[in-house]
Amino acid sequence: MPINIRKELFALESPIQKMADRACARKGCVRFDIGDPDLPTPPHIIEAAVKALRDGKTKYTSQLGIEPLREAIAHYEKTANQLNHITKDNVLVTVGGMGAMFLACSALLKHGEKILFPEPSWLAGYTLVVSSGPGGFVTTPFFDDDNNFILDESIFKNHNIKLLLVNSPENPTGRVLNKTNLGKLVRIAEKYDLTIISDEVYEPMLYDGAKHISIATLAPERTIKVNSVSKRYAMTGFRIGWLISPEAQLIKEFGKINRGIAACPPTVSQYAALTAITGPQDCVKEMIAEYTRRQQTIKPEMDKIGWTYIAPEGAFYTFPNIKQNANLLCPDLIEKAGVSAVPGESFGAKHNEYIRLCFGSATVPQIKEGFRRLHNYFKNTELKQVLAGRLKNTKNTNAFNHRRL
Amino acid sequence: MPINIRKELFALESPIQKMADRACARKGCVRFDIGDPDLPTPPHIIEAAVKALRDGKTKYTSQLGIEPLREAIAHYEKTANQLNHITKDNVLVTVGGMGAMFLACSALLKHGEKILFPEPSWLAGYTLVVSSGPGGFVTTPFFDDDNNFILDESIFKNHNIKLLLVNSPENPTGRVLNKTNLGKLVRIAEKYDLTIISDEVYEPMLYDGAKHISIATLAPERTIKVNSVSKRYAMTGFRIGWLISPEAQLIKEFGKINRGIAACPPTVSQYAALTAITGPQDCVKEMIAEYTRRQQTIKPEMDKIGWTYIAPEGAFYTFPNIKQNANLLCPDLIEKAGVSAVPGESFGAKHNEYIRLCFGSATVPQIKEGFRRLHNYFKNTELKQVLAGRLKNTKNTNAFNHRRL
Repeated sequence: MPINIRKELFALESPIQKMADRACARKGCVRFDIGDPDLPTPPHIIEAAVKALRDGKTKYTSQLGIEPLREAIAHYEKTANQLNHITKDNVLVTVGGMGAMFLACSALLKHGEKILFPEPSWLAGYTLVVSSGPGGFVTTPFFDDDNNFILDESIFKNHNIKLLLVNSPENPTGRVLNKTNLGKLVRIAEKYDLTIISDEVYEPMLYDGAKHISIATLAPERTIKVNSVSKRYAMTGFRIGWLISPEAQLIKEFGKINRGIAACPPTVSQYAALTAITGPQDCVKEMIAEYTRRQQTIKPEMDKIGWTYIAPEGAFYTFPNIKQNANLLCPDLIEKAGVSAVPGESFGAKHNEYIRLCFGSATVPQIKEGFRRLHNYFKNTELKQVLAGRLKNTKNTNAFNHRRL
Repeated sequence: MPINIRKELFALESPIQKMADRACARKGCVRFDIGDPDLPTPPHIIEAAVKALRDGKTKYTSQLGIEPLREAIAHYEKTANQLNHITKDNVLVTVGGMGAMFLACSALLKHGEKILFPEPSWLAGYTLVVSSGPGGFVTTPFFDDDNNFILDESIFKNHNIKLLLVNSPENPTGRVLNKTNLGKLVRIAEKYDLTIISDEVYEPMLYDGAKHISIATLAPERTIKVNSVSKRYAMTGFRIGWLISPEAQLIKEFGKINRGIAACPPTVSQYAALTAITGPQDCVKEMIAEYTRRQQTIKPEMDKIGWTYIAPEGAFYTFPNIKQNANLLCPDLIEKAGVSAVPGESFGAKHNEYIRLCFGSATVPQIKEGFRRLHNYFKNTELKQVLAGRLKNTKNTNAFNHRRL
């Protein structure tokens, strides 16, 4: 075979995409799988993009992004997130939050150096990000389901870890880290001299009175913040994110990676993002009001089934412990019940009895219908007994399959 | 300093951007620097993007790109370039040609493995591409100015080379490789078991009867072809390119890198590219007719100055040998003459007495005005004598500067 792809790539799977593909093929499936908001991009943002197109904003921009967008982002991060140490010179516009994550990892990790990801976290995406560049990764739990800090520091002896990934509000749990818990991570970063990569793309989506605190306000000198318009303004297809570096002189260096992977972020999208950030913010409030209704619908539904879960105070996910093998359950749920969810193993090997449910793309009626189907499924296929523990922790998956679940 | 960027990055400079920045600051400068076409994106492509925006095509797509675009690209590559071995399953849509280049290099090079780039070539970009991933690079001349094959094979003993970059039509020379010369590169690839990365983004821009042959037709099983709508349709800001893999099963693996750096290519841009490729092609013919007029204007102008150059039969560049230190000349040309060009060293260390002139963004009158200024510059500042060789190869740059050139 004259084309030899790096073998590590074959090991990296995207179970979220796999579930989404299965769900697409199942007519009328209630979709709790992919984290892509169903709400439309607000019309004034669409029209800003139309204007940019017709004004001929269709050529390369600087690899750092257009100046007015960098200024608008700096203003936003200062006023909304108290990042008082920054100006536009600390801002790099990227191809979405993933582009920002990639270029931080690529610029900061030499071969043999690693980033530490929490478990559970969005490993399906994060591992692809870091594996595309020169660095490596390792994962460990940071907090348990009761938000106790359980990070086992022996990992720093066994691996050459240089970066610490912090994600709040958290995908897949909806967990929002408070100041005390963020402080624990800052102390780890200080103790082991780590740079923090802070993925805050879900920052505006908060419920039940939760507050977002950027870890960049607690450790400004060692935090690279990653953010995006994708989820906030339902603009996932525009591919505009950004990176905040506390050292302005490094932006030029990060910009080289931006150029190396993309030349520049898409131009029309940059103008759309400029209008999103500087225009009226009612659309964000309305979207969050809608996500709040969904969050308030899904919680009691999970309670009725008897699932336990970390309080989903942010983002648009919840990560219930379903007390059975999710890798077996999820495909069956799509096929038999017409409900899609992502198996927990995508977010950490120890979480194979969890599922991620996204309420970013399921309306309140869809959530109710989805849970009606789940109730029927569990009732009709005797799975209530499975849930109750009869087949719990079975090693004999053949026997399990034989029951035609 | 708690944020430690990889030191290799600091060494990578972008002299093209530097010259462009200087040229922007010099009012009324005739611009031969950046390779961004000045011609507008055709209106029917703009309106296709407008329609996609208003139709709500604003969310994530598959990390492989939308199916109809992959189909349109496969059809195009088959009919225009005789890549008869491919279907849509061999196509991956990327964030521009650079995104495609990056993901080929990232997927195919392990740490310690290298890609071989020709000298001269677009090293300012290529080196950034490969340095963003796990691999490395090395450069050597493939052909001399008379198109003699001069590749010194000892480089394969001294470096662990796995990839061979082929670029025709070539940036910065405008050289178009004929079947004989492409065949020589194929034999090198076969002899050392290399995968060929073929950058063909300038393929439609041909002059003086030149024909484009894709090396993928000569070595289909070992060639990854990179292409883009950027230059062809004057769509550089849309950021849509693609990669053709002869092995369809590898597209999924390449797609993981696509996801890791960008999630997916920008959605509206994909629909615009679909219309570009499947819509009327008169716009391409008209653009090439305009570039042809420019190419036919710039050649005799260079002859008059006495510069020698490789026949610019493709792309929209020419790379004259100016017989003096271009690193000193180019900044001075911007300041004193109001003409910008890129010093040859950006394209290979041995080419420091060459400059790249782009006629993609300079009209016929601008080219004439630019050369009028060059003539005056050389006449008025005694540089004719410099050109004639009096200061050629001077090592004493202080003395040179002292002359206030």
